[in-house]
Amino acid sequence: MTMSLLAVGSVAFDDLETPFGHREHVLGGSATYFSLSASRFHPVRIVAVVGEDFGPEQMRVFDQRPIDLTGLARVEGLSFHWKGSYGYDLNEAKTLATDLNVFADFRPDLPAAFRNSPYLFLGNIDPVLQLDVVRQMSIRPKWIALDTMNYWIRGAQPALLTVLKEVDILLVNDAEVRELTQEHSLIKAYRKIQALGPGILVVKRGEYGVLLFTPGGIFAAPAYPLESVFDPTGAGDTFAGGFLGYLASVERTDTTALKHATLVGSVMASFTVEQFSTERLEQISQDEVRNRLSLFSDMIRVEDL
Amino acid sequence: MTMSLLAVGSVAFDDLETPFGHREHVLGGSATYFSLSASRFHPVRIVAVVGEDFGPEQMRVFDQRPIDLTGLARVEGLSFHWKGSYGYDLNEAKTLATDLNVFADFRPDLPAAFRNSPYLFLGNIDPVLQLDVVRQMSIRPKWIALDTMNYWIRGAQPALLTVLKEVDILLVNDAEVRELTQEHSLIKAYRKIQALGPGILVVKRGEYGVLLFTPGGIFAAPAYPLESVFDPTGAGDTFAGGFLGYLASVERTDTTALKHATLVGSVMASFTVEQFSTERLEQISQDEVRNRLSLFSDMIRVEDL
Repeated sequence: MTMSLLAVGSVAFDDLETPFGHREHVLGGSATYFSLSASRFHPVRIVAVVGEDFGPEQMRVFDQRPIDLTGLARVEGLSFHWKGSYGYDLNEAKTLATDLNVFADFRPDLPAAFRNSPYLFLGNIDPVLQLDVVRQMSIRPKWIALDTMNYWIRGAQPALLTVLKEVDILLVNDAEVRELTQEHSLIKAYRKIQALGPGILVVKRGEYGVLLFTPGGIFAAPAYPLESVFDPTGAGDTFAGGFLGYLASVERTDTTALKHATLVGSVMASFTVEQFSTERLEQISQDEVRNRLSLFSDMIRVEDL
Repeated sequence: MTMSLLAVGSVAFDDLETPFGHREHVLGGSATYFSLSASRFHPVRIVAVVGEDFGPEQMRVFDQRPIDLTGLARVEGLSFHWKGSYGYDLNEAKTLATDLNVFADFRPDLPAAFRNSPYLFLGNIDPVLQLDVVRQMSIRPKWIALDTMNYWIRGAQPALLTVLKEVDILLVNDAEVRELTQEHSLIKAYRKIQALGPGILVVKRGEYGVLLFTPGGIFAAPAYPLESVFDPTGAGDTFAGGFLGYLASVERTDTTALKHATLVGSVMASFTVEQFSTERLEQISQDEVRNRLSLFSDMIRVEDL
């Protein structure tokens, strides 16, 4: 049995506008960023759908990496397309267009060989589909992680609450966890999340870093400070990929492993935002990852007071 | 010579509205929060002005602490008054009223005994007055720290740039440093700040913590995570008080001392925001400060990857 990390999510084309430039029809989607990041640390299996416009040029990005595309369906029509723009502070995307295209009829169908994957990441899609994926698993994964967004928290809460009962690790941003729990205090919000299912809560705060809540305590990590940020698209999915890919690779979820995973995820995300789309994420060497991890560790280290 | 930390700033009355309640005519002002916080670690001397409405009840708050009020002028008229409200996210105050009152004619006049203070904090007042304070010093302090705001960055930039040449430690929030330097990247902004004078930059980011820039590198610290936040008023001044009071007490400004000062300032600020006005800050014991510092150190500690 391959110890793979199974990820379900979107593979898409993006149009991106930032104060520093723009790109049209570039590779995007949560499963794309996630798998490019996670596969640095652990083999990944993708379940997603693309259209006829998704050709060899795009497929090539996944080549030479431990990413199993058996579950990437290619169907008639156009791929999911998102157009977004960012203001000067880069903290929030303004969605200019969302064309679901083939994604509108996406019903994840796990290849038989994928159903015993020991690690499962449910990317930000309809909670009904996330639940359907969980039910297709032949064995209960060692852990299940889930990402979601306000659109589903508002519009599909019953299904979301049902799938959350199966989830071990919830990854969301601070606005999302506050909306889901109706608690401003993230400490109180974490207690409510625990009661809903997930024992581990990862709160992503963009340029302000990550708060990690575990039964063993809270860990707060800054974002890796960068000289230049070009395009924040995919930062959250890249973080999730590094975080979960690292956890799968060490086969542990104790507090130390979770803290290290937070640093790994943050460092991976820092590469993604330095260029548009997956440009930087595709190019980085293992040495660059290692060096930045080492710099980051130094940056947050404090001698005992 | 007493090794005191001299602070110039405001002592005021505040009206405060938050989603969790409101208070009227309570003690406020930058020098108030600063001195209550800093005096836990080092003797403080205040230079400020109050009106006839500032009576024994208010003075009592400073009693029994190493706070020298020789430089607190009491003049005809009413004290500075600020009225502000906060929305649910508590991140930004909306100013409803600012009555300068006696503060409008404030010209800091340092008592002779204050002029040789080895440490100087220039609170957020008109840069012309900050410069005037620097010129009244009989010896060059070991370090000078300065706080400012967008109002002065826009309206009094020449004076601000002049006083910054004398400053060693600049404490501002991220919007302020970006406006002052016209740089979005805080790393690039720090280089411009260094060229303006201060070698040390402390970027306060509210609930997202602090970024510390020193010639020895960057240090990123989260805010101390709290169960309940009632009133963020004074958090920045309390941070500055803890940060600079600690630095004065250890008589060092190396990177380790600056990191520790960041933790101390963050912990002090975490107390302030748990109650309205200075209520909590007045009451905390040295044990509570020590315990929270220890919890905070644990929270950000990571074993080597």
